[in-house]
Amino acid sequence: MAAQSVATSAETVEINGSGTSVDLGPATGLSCRECGTRFELGPIFACAECFGPLEVAYELPLGDPEALRAAIEAGPNNIWRYAPLLPVPADVASKPSLNPGFTKLVDAANLAKEFGVTGKLYVKDDSGNPTHSFKDRVVAIAVEAARAFGFTTLSCSSTGNLAGAVGAAAARAGFRSCVFIPHDLEQGKVVMAGVYGGDLVGIEGNYDDVNRFCSELIGDPLGEGWGFVNVNLRPYYGEGSKTLAYEICEQLGWQLPDQIVIPIASGSQLTKIDKGLQELIKLGLVEDKPYKIFGAQAEGCSPVSTAFKAGHEVVRPQKPNTIAKSLAIGNPADGPYVLDIARRTGGFVEDVNDEQVVEAIKILAQTEGIFAETAGGVTVGVTKKLIEDGHLDPTLTTVILNTGDGLKTLEAVAEGGGQTATIRPSLDAFRAANLA
Amino acid sequence: MAAQSVATSAETVEINGSGTSVDLGPATGLSCRECGTRFELGPIFACAECFGPLEVAYELPLGDPEALRAAIEAGPNNIWRYAPLLPVPADVASKPSLNPGFTKLVDAANLAKEFGVTGKLYVKDDSGNPTHSFKDRVVAIAVEAARAFGFTTLSCSSTGNLAGAVGAAAARAGFRSCVFIPHDLEQGKVVMAGVYGGDLVGIEGNYDDVNRFCSELIGDPLGEGWGFVNVNLRPYYGEGSKTLAYEICEQLGWQLPDQIVIPIASGSQLTKIDKGLQELIKLGLVEDKPYKIFGAQAEGCSPVSTAFKAGHEVVRPQKPNTIAKSLAIGNPADGPYVLDIARRTGGFVEDVNDEQVVEAIKILAQTEGIFAETAGGVTVGVTKKLIEDGHLDPTLTTVILNTGDGLKTLEAVAEGGGQTATIRPSLDAFRAANLA
Repeated sequence: MAAQSVATSAETVEINGSGTSVDLGPATGLSCRECGTRFELGPIFACAECFGPLEVAYELPLGDPEALRAAIEAGPNNIWRYAPLLPVPADVASKPSLNPGFTKLVDAANLAKEFGVTGKLYVKDDSGNPTHSFKDRVVAIAVEAARAFGFTTLSCSSTGNLAGAVGAAAARAGFRSCVFIPHDLEQGKVVMAGVYGGDLVGIEGNYDDVNRFCSELIGDPLGEGWGFVNVNLRPYYGEGSKTLAYEICEQLGWQLPDQIVIPIASGSQLTKIDKGLQELIKLGLVEDKPYKIFGAQAEGCSPVSTAFKAGHEVVRPQKPNTIAKSLAIGNPADGPYVLDIARRTGGFVEDVNDEQVVEAIKILAQTEGIFAETAGGVTVGVTKKLIEDGHLDPTLTTVILNTGDGLKTLEAVAEGGGQTATIRPSLDAFRAANLA
Repeated sequence: MAAQSVATSAETVEINGSGTSVDLGPATGLSCRECGTRFELGPIFACAECFGPLEVAYELPLGDPEALRAAIEAGPNNIWRYAPLLPVPADVASKPSLNPGFTKLVDAANLAKEFGVTGKLYVKDDSGNPTHSFKDRVVAIAVEAARAFGFTTLSCSSTGNLAGAVGAAAARAGFRSCVFIPHDLEQGKVVMAGVYGGDLVGIEGNYDDVNRFCSELIGDPLGEGWGFVNVNLRPYYGEGSKTLAYEICEQLGWQLPDQIVIPIASGSQLTKIDKGLQELIKLGLVEDKPYKIFGAQAEGCSPVSTAFKAGHEVVRPQKPNTIAKSLAIGNPADGPYVLDIARRTGGFVEDVNDEQVVEAIKILAQTEGIFAETAGGVTVGVTKKLIEDGHLDPTLTTVILNTGDGLKTLEAVAEGGGQTATIRPSLDAFRAANLA
């Protein structure tokens, strides 16, 4: 297979009754995750038969893995290098986008030493994305779907990072935006989300209230022409997280890691990373071998880890109360799938308390110079706990995800952080401060 | 010239009397910018003959530009791809570093339209660096010098970004750090700089007071074993800014831009970007042609633009008073060189007031989805003014530098930013807010 054929494997599919043709590259339709019913590509997210979630189905470029690898490696230094594996048109890289992705996979030798890890330990640092969270990945894909379906306003329910990512992407791609957040988020996230010129609406309630409100809005004439990236565009949006799996494996020299630790909010990211790894195996881009997927939650919002540890197959909603606000989803849509994946791969789902989150943020900063947001603190903290409890093997290759930036959750470390001393500009004053 | 010979063009030079050998790659010594006197590589920054500033002198890989270009392009996606042109050992990419650089050169078509630019307009977005400012570049080079000279503590005087960059780089590279800042900086910069575990000392005074204090500390036994990245390691540190010139030209397809707009704090960055462009010409990596360099200051700290517009050759110090705190250096060390370069290339040095800075931050965010810190607002605002006043040609290819991140200067836009509305989670409440 030549590089060109990778880039032109698109199909054109008629939307149900709308008469417009949609080019989303290798995406051939939507498929119900529960009952398998197929639908044409469109802004739908729930199965008309069983209300199960819909996923994108593909005609993947099976055939010559070497050629596909070469085509990917010759592509741009962002997620569009994986365009043949995503629901986007082949010319996506030429469209106005924030071009997220291909963030650093940091060899975290200092952190490994700190945690007693003798294998390789990596941090996949998604704070390097344009708006400094992994959300730029999923939004970039949703923007292409919104374009294809003729939406003019981009919207979402958000715990903060997504609001900023949608605002920024909409500004650059020429969409209006109107995004919804719980009214009491961290200042960094609120100010950032507001600066891109779209509407930013604070909802008096928690994320689950915001989400319910958005579902109502979609059914109302007020929401006509609106693409909600994580509601009616959710099947496309979710695919963006697959790029984390692709990048990790490519950056490891086209190899699967042994263990991955992933934070859980809705659970979509973890689910799609597993989907991405499975695709790489199917495509022959990596050699098949066992890998374990671990989920990380904050104790104050731990519906999935609670269910995992109790051996349940359903996830009982919680009322969130944690400083890890970007993970504060009490009723996670993909919770049951996370349980399946963690159990199937031999992983685990664990949680840490707020104090441990803050401690973990500092450990990561002080060992690797990476300033993570609270969600990153959750993941690093859970990794520590998993090692201590024997669930994670410290002799293997492990990848930890840092999905966001400490500058957006300054509140978490503001107390312990800041100036060691404040002095007059004199050597005597410095001597008296006793720091040298 | 083969790729290997590029990577091994290092020389070993004896430090004055110390007996240790120093490998800083192609760097062969230090040279006084004023009188040309040569010195061996060492932690010195002022000429013993005339007190002029010292610069790194090189044995550059002259010869086969095609081979050098190919070697660079095959290098890592960070500043170490330019190791043959920097004072760093050939194996630098294998050492613990934040690996900054190779940030996006954003095709800013929306901003061009907004400003009536008919040529190409690009934003070199250095908020994509590990600690989200261009300072990661200069610090990464200084760390190599500090390693070579046997320092164990990294230090600096900083307006905030540098403090964070030093703290993070020191943590990862295994140095102790102790950094000095004016005590009244933006919260984001202070908290971030403090999180990496080094000492962060607030000085009661402005940046120029902090800088004077650091100069005293170097001469005192208290400062023994300390590498001040922007004082006694300044000749090495400054070279990091050359990578901005290298990357811009490489990302333009190995071409010089016609015009570059650069913010001025100490003036070092602008001076070294010019040095970088001149090196690329000398090496045959780009075709020689005229280019213009423009400097950008805030009205509340505009010693260089004031001197430029008055036709002076010296820069009269000012007492800074501007929201662009990262540019608030009233007595800029490289001011006279900036005047030279702007005049020699046919550029201009301009300033904008704080209101224009905030407006420019919002314009950039709302057109390109890039959230710049106040320094970026200065550069974008000055670009607008230069176009309006006819100093900058809107039909040519122009590159604007964004050197830092809006999340670190939230204060500047917090008032106008934030939530458009706060409502109960109901369609009626949303309808009443009148946003749809």
